[in-house]
Amino acid sequence: MRNDHHLIALFLISLNCLGLAQDKNVEKWGVYELSLPGPTGGNPFVGIEFSAVFKQGNQTFEPEGFYDGNGAFKIRFMPNAEGLWTYQTKSNYDALDNKQGQFICVPPSSGIHGPVRVRNQYHFEYADGTPFFPFGTTIYEWPFQSDTMQEQTIETLKTSPFNKVRFLVIPPWQEYYIEGSKVLTCFPFEGNSKENWNFSRFNPEFFRRLERCILELKKIGIQAELILFRPYDNGKWGFDTMDRATNDRLLHYVIARFAAYHNVWWSLANENSYIEHLTDEDWDHYFQVVQRCDPYHRLRSIHNADRIYDHTKPWVTHVSLQYYMAVRFFGVSPLLRDIYKKPIIHDEINYEGNRDRRWGQLSGEEMVYRFWIAYIGGAYATHGETIQRPNNPDWISVGGDLRGKSPERIAFLRKIVEQGPARGLDPIDQYYETNMAGQSGQYYLIYFGKESVKEWAFKLPQKGLEPDMRFRADVIDTWNMTITPVEQVFEIEKLNPYTYIDRKQSKINLPGKPYMALRIQRLQ
Amino acid sequence: MRNDHHLIALFLISLNCLGLAQDKNVEKWGVYELSLPGPTGGNPFVGIEFSAVFKQGNQTFEPEGFYDGNGAFKIRFMPNAEGLWTYQTKSNYDALDNKQGQFICVPPSSGIHGPVRVRNQYHFEYADGTPFFPFGTTIYEWPFQSDTMQEQTIETLKTSPFNKVRFLVIPPWQEYYIEGSKVLTCFPFEGNSKENWNFSRFNPEFFRRLERCILELKKIGIQAELILFRPYDNGKWGFDTMDRATNDRLLHYVIARFAAYHNVWWSLANENSYIEHLTDEDWDHYFQVVQRCDPYHRLRSIHNADRIYDHTKPWVTHVSLQYYMAVRFFGVSPLLRDIYKKPIIHDEINYEGNRDRRWGQLSGEEMVYRFWIAYIGGAYATHGETIQRPNNPDWISVGGDLRGKSPERIAFLRKIVEQGPARGLDPIDQYYETNMAGQSGQYYLIYFGKESVKEWAFKLPQKGLEPDMRFRADVIDTWNMTITPVEQVFEIEKLNPYTYIDRKQSKINLPGKPYMALRIQRLQ
Repeated sequence: MRNDHHLIALFLISLNCLGLAQDKNVEKWGVYELSLPGPTGGNPFVGIEFSAVFKQGNQTFEPEGFYDGNGAFKIRFMPNAEGLWTYQTKSNYDALDNKQGQFICVPPSSGIHGPVRVRNQYHFEYADGTPFFPFGTTIYEWPFQSDTMQEQTIETLKTSPFNKVRFLVIPPWQEYYIEGSKVLTCFPFEGNSKENWNFSRFNPEFFRRLERCILELKKIGIQAELILFRPYDNGKWGFDTMDRATNDRLLHYVIARFAAYHNVWWSLANENSYIEHLTDEDWDHYFQVVQRCDPYHRLRSIHNADRIYDHTKPWVTHVSLQYYMAVRFFGVSPLLRDIYKKPIIHDEINYEGNRDRRWGQLSGEEMVYRFWIAYIGGAYATHGETIQRPNNPDWISVGGDLRGKSPERIAFLRKIVEQGPARGLDPIDQYYETNMAGQSGQYYLIYFGKESVKEWAFKLPQKGLEPDMRFRADVIDTWNMTITPVEQVFEIEKLNPYTYIDRKQSKINLPGKPYMALRIQRLQ
Repeated sequence: MRNDHHLIALFLISLNCLGLAQDKNVEKWGVYELSLPGPTGGNPFVGIEFSAVFKQGNQTFEPEGFYDGNGAFKIRFMPNAEGLWTYQTKSNYDALDNKQGQFICVPPSSGIHGPVRVRNQYHFEYADGTPFFPFGTTIYEWPFQSDTMQEQTIETLKTSPFNKVRFLVIPPWQEYYIEGSKVLTCFPFEGNSKENWNFSRFNPEFFRRLERCILELKKIGIQAELILFRPYDNGKWGFDTMDRATNDRLLHYVIARFAAYHNVWWSLANENSYIEHLTDEDWDHYFQVVQRCDPYHRLRSIHNADRIYDHTKPWVTHVSLQYYMAVRFFGVSPLLRDIYKKPIIHDEINYEGNRDRRWGQLSGEEMVYRFWIAYIGGAYATHGETIQRPNNPDWISVGGDLRGKSPERIAFLRKIVEQGPARGLDPIDQYYETNMAGQSGQYYLIYFGKESVKEWAFKLPQKGLEPDMRFRADVIDTWNMTITPVEQVFEIEKLNPYTYIDRKQSKINLPGKPYMALRIQRLQ
């Protein structure tokens, strides 16, 4: 594509002759923003249709625009290819209609890999083909905190293992947003209480703050999983009982504002079934609205409470699951993969903390154990921390700093996963050998969990193996974060239709304590 | 309904005046069979449309007919209500068209409960409301064995714990059907080898033998799960590579012949994905053919190999799963229930036996353990035995006698389940307390699996409990099949938001060995 720059320059000259506006350059996967003055009277949030068709060659995208207050109507577009892009607006309001222009998309800055998508059915990659292995954390309310707190959260994230953050688009009702030091003054809609919301007018200031959070995450290479709807209201603000027209408008607005940012993921809801008046058919509808409005098809999921949505539906890109037992036992994630045939992210596996509720009292050991169980199952997990501090809500609520024992061990796991096969970890033999993942014939990660194993006879499932292949091994202490190479080369022979073993029937010594793993890698 | 008999008699007199044929009485859930002479020339299996509309009040059923050889066209119908039924045939062949008649449906014989259907989303019941708790076994090839062997199988089943048998409609290719003592001479189609099948002509004799098997099972109150397609051919007979027209015709024929028998279940296939040319879209089609042709909507499922069919589809009545790890760990069945929202039957959990293949070498202990894991998860399981005997294939292949240690323990479990809540066993708290099932507030079955527990502090999840409720307990040894009442009454109080405990903080002593369970029942 870069060889075409001269041709593009020529093109531009000709297009200029045709009187098309030419704008500044935009990086590939960056955002081109078009701002036009529109009507300020009446309600500019309702009834103004506004979009633009962006074209390059056979590619066409039609993002919708949004009203950003002060008479400004904006359209944001993320080009996915270098070279010349042209656009033309469409609107039922004359001053916004039929505006044409063009811009040049230049190569991305170093370190920018583009949006994340599904690859190999069960995994993820960036648009440039770089694998993306999700290691998420949840900070539900961080967009609604003070600037200082948000800055602290970003600083914490920079040195954390986390590359995805889940958070709410709509603030949950909390006592501390009504009185105390965190009183909320800025809401998604005009108004400041249940009595005077104007659900047909958004508050652009609120969304600009949210936007800043997305951009801060983008800057440090972290995916922003926006949770679009949530139940946590207790009848106080009524943000969970809005009607379909309002919900639809909110979706259009959020997508128009944020979809162009390449680090955005959509989570339709947190604990969706706790929004009691919405049926699965309603969720089908909202998924389809997102699918239709988002021209880039950012990742789409939904997070369950007691009723699990049917993740086999075509608009669900990956499974976002809250089901704690699924990360307590080996083999469950492979089953989920086989059922859903999509990537599995255990987005809520209980939290490391000291809350008095049982979902918020995991030990660091248990959190790390559950992470390993998930990844060894060919799935992914999301961290959360509920270590309460005096006068300060915990990480999963507001962010700030991390105090748990799990994050550095999750970082250790992440390093192992990223040094592992680019295709990711897949179950090796999900019906019988449930504690093993990797890529058959090449790479095996074996996790012993809570078992205290003293030795491991070298033995691998037959798939992908041939006699005389050679392997090396490392003993991994997942808690103390050590990797100890085994001073031996293992050369295999077939034992039976299912199994290869080391020719010398070698065993690997293990320290007889829990949370140990083995890494077996083929020598070429 | 029984009070209406006089009215019906009057009705009959009037109908007789109209010249309608009146036939013999048929029991409710029995089979009314109509046989008419039809064409014998050409190919009577193809091109003759033949069905009959059976009516009573607002109820209408239209079973298809089938050609049974020797010029006889038959229609079988199962009435689901007592009283007068009328019928009228439809055909594109004159002699079969517009035949009218009637019969009286009388009360069922004692012990006849009608066909099985789903109840309470995760369980089953007979048509008369009696709960049906599946305890199945698999005997793939028993319809293709000698009369003597079939009689032995029936005798074995009579004293076994099994109330459902899974078996193949189409024989699998086996060496012993070609040479040896079991040579097969009767096939679903005319012909006797791959070279001369006439796939457009069925062999009624073959289906009459199959029918006898269904009827023998019916007589002893056992459900007959007919496996319609199977992969086991190795290119020898070609019964797994027939085209869609042939497969469709086979479905119509099998359904027309057998659907009226109240003990029939349909399994679309065994290890469906091993029939490699059939896609999930093909299976959608075949499911829909069954759904359309079977006027009674007998239970429909499909049994997987490596690719799991999407059991959320509306024509799947319950999940028939082959996934061994799902019965090796607590909590997986509740997850499957929550995903599929249908009954879960683990139809292949490996077999008790001594085969050299790993799927056929479970110990009796392991088989019984897996059964308990399934039922404690609110699911059901199916037994199979691969204890090989000299010169004699094993139970899962041909039937005969049972030699394993698991059947009597499965009988013990069945008795416990049948004495338990009529609603069946449901998970009590699937996210946290995975080894417990029953009905909250009333009945708890707690299984300790392979753990050697010495005491159990009386402690129950809060759902359905109130302070001062009183309970009694039994210690169950699932292997030695003993039930020992605990000589104490437990009276509960609330410990925390999640848990009730015995007021005196009592503990129940357990023998510190594996395979123990507790049964806790409320005292009124």
